[in-house]
Amino acid sequence: MAEQPAVASDCQCGNSDHQHGYIAAKDAYLKRLRRIEGQARGLQRMVDEDAYCIDILTQVSAMTKALQSVSLELLTDHMNHCVVDAAAKGGDEAQAKIDEAMAAISRFVK
Amino acid sequence: MAEQPAVASDCQCGNSDHQHGYIAAKDAYLKRLRRIEGQARGLQRMVDEDAYCIDILTQVSAMTKALQSVSLELLTDHMNHCVVDAAAKGGDEAQAKIDEAMAAISRFVK
Amino acid sequence: MAEQPAVASDCQCGNSDHQHGYIAAKDAYLKRLRRIEGQARGLQRMVDEDAYCIDILTQVSAMTKALQSVSLELLTDHMNHCVVDAAAKGGDEAQAKIDEAMAAISRFVK
Amino acid sequence: MAEQPAVASDCQCGNSDHQHGYIAAKDAYLKRLRRIEGQARGLQRMVDEDAYCIDILTQVSAMTKALQSVSLELLTDHMNHCVVDAAAKGGDEAQAKIDEAMAAISRFVK
Repeated sequence: MAEQPAVASDCQCGNSDHQHGYIAAKDAYLKRLRRIEGQARGLQRMVDEDAYCIDILTQVSAMTKALQSVSLELLTDHMNHCVVDAAAKGGDEAQAKIDEAMAAISRFVK
Repeated sequence: MAEQPAVASDCQCGNSDHQHGYIAAKDAYLKRLRRIEGQARGLQRMVDEDAYCIDILTQVSAMTKALQSVSLELLTDHMNHCVVDAAAKGGDEAQAKIDEAMAAISRFVK
Repeated sequence: MAEQPAVASDCQCGNSDHQHGYIAAKDAYLKRLRRIEGQARGLQRMVDEDAYCIDILTQVSAMTKALQSVSLELLTDHMNHCVVDAAAKGGDEAQAKIDEAMAAISRFVK
Repeated sequence: MAEQPAVASDCQCGNSDHQHGYIAAKDAYLKRLRRIEGQARGLQRMVDEDAYCIDILTQVSAMTKALQSVSLELLTDHMNHCVVDAAAKGGDEAQAKIDEAMAAISRFVK
């Protein structure tokens, strides 16, 4: 979890005024996801070469932690942009954004 | 989580008498890991195409669940083979295998 | 996770205009926490009466799920009131509330 | 998670040859569960006194961690005694104990 995107993303709330800086964050996410893809390939190699089960499990744990870290980062960006913007406008849309974010958080926890 | 390997793997405990059937389980694991690799590529495409943040999070959750399912299956195979064999022999090695399995389980939970 | 407080709480953001309805939600939380306290006593009874380990673990899981459910409810109330209010005002306080909520969410997930 | 029972429990596998030492472990578990019961009462007090939501969530997280720690300890004792004993005997009972333990582990993870 060492790396943090230098610039926050807005992960597309549908308003254009947050586009600045998006490119840098996107590159950081893509880099992390490519590394996760590499971990999935590494696991296939381990299985293919009959690696010891516990060693495979250790790598699966590392990959799961990397995914959770991406999730938390994406959620933070989403809260900082889409949810804050909707809340500032208020009304039904604010409530809908909060409900949607809470549903995503529940999926994490369960 | 629909699929279950038709034949249990032994994920290499270092004893050769469990090798029978290993090929079938290995293929099932490789198939699941290839699908997980595909999910990692799908996430990169979503980020690249500026997908909505919550939709990306939903896919990350699905991928995390798929990884957890592989973990539980690997752990089950490991318990059914390596741990059971070591326990049958008893002594220090049995204890070492249990400690090692519990350490892997702790990494899941935390 | 059947029960939901009939009226949302605001769990004290420091603004008085959300006090209406707080009493009803408070009662619902207290009722759930009393039941969780009862589960903790039930576990002591099980240990004391030498219950089977797996049966104790099943009860610990049920108690953990009940706690997670309270957490998610509290977080939802917090988002719906404190975070939404702060976001509507904007500025540093909005950011501080989001950061604080994200730190709480990270503690859940890890 | 500082404290560890000085003597391992066997949490009742139905064989009497592990009874030695059970009393000490039982006392350690009871002490931890009483503390968890105290945390549940502390949470009620916080809700009753309108504590800040995030502070309540922090306490719920601490209580959940304490429960998870008890779970892992109970599972370790169970593996070290009931599962090892059943595995040493082999056959259907060994398989049944492993299946039961894996079902308990799955409940943790999900």
